[in-house]
Amino acid sequence: MSITPDQIDLPAVCAELQAEFTRYEAALMANDVQALNDFFWCDPRVTRYGIADKQLGHEALVRYRAQVPAPDFTRALHRVRLHSFGPDLAVAQCEFTRSDTPLHGFQTQTWARLPEGWKIVAAHVSMVPPFPDP
Amino acid sequence: MSITPDQIDLPAVCAELQAEFTRYEAALMANDVQALNDFFWCDPRVTRYGIADKQLGHEALVRYRAQVPAPDFTRALHRVRLHSFGPDLAVAQCEFTRSDTPLHGFQTQTWARLPEGWKIVAAHVSMVPPFPDP
Repeated sequence: MSITPDQIDLPAVCAELQAEFTRYEAALMANDVQALNDFFWCDPRVTRYGIADKQLGHEALVRYRAQVPAPDFTRALHRVRLHSFGPDLAVAQCEFTRSDTPLHGFQTQTWARLPEGWKIVAAHVSMVPPFPDP
Repeated sequence: MSITPDQIDLPAVCAELQAEFTRYEAALMANDVQALNDFFWCDPRVTRYGIADKQLGHEALVRYRAQVPAPDFTRALHRVRLHSFGPDLAVAQCEFTRSDTPLHGFQTQTWARLPEGWKIVAAHVSMVPPFPDP
């Protein structure tokens, strides 16, 4: 049992994930709290590591979103890397820049297709000083 | 098609991942470059976002490891969260502290069982100033 190369990046799965990823970004910038909460696996095992915060479990995520102000910045995504592994799992990664800071951002989301739909089961966001591209 | 709740955190899969995760940590602290390179999916699509760096593709990872000095610190892992989704995919997340800095670390790895074995297909590491635990 394993994920064979032909099961990686199935076009139909990647297309679904691209749509979810785009919807997530729109919800984030609109600060659509309900939508953002719905994107995440509703389970104590969901984990999000943030830029200066963390949320362990969906309840912590809901509390976090309730107190995050709407973004007063725009952001641009760069080098989006979206790859699926089998029909039900995918990772979406991207770099981003924001209008309010010179810092450089990284975002990683692992998505799973659960009975209730595609959900983010793990997320990690960070911002670092600009560094030379090797 | 989806991952049903009974397919999440299958004990046999979690046990395999725990073993890989432990071996990875040992290789990291020993700066076993060959082992570290072997833990990652040998593919241009692998992505690692680092504390002040990034590697897009396995070749970039190999170049990065070749110039990273052996760690002159110890690190302690906290709140390891390892969850599997079906037989072939898992996410390992943890917080860490290091002996050389007061910063607080986050580490996320997405692992896939490929024909060549369990491999990290996406990784993200960050360190942030300590923050109040909500």
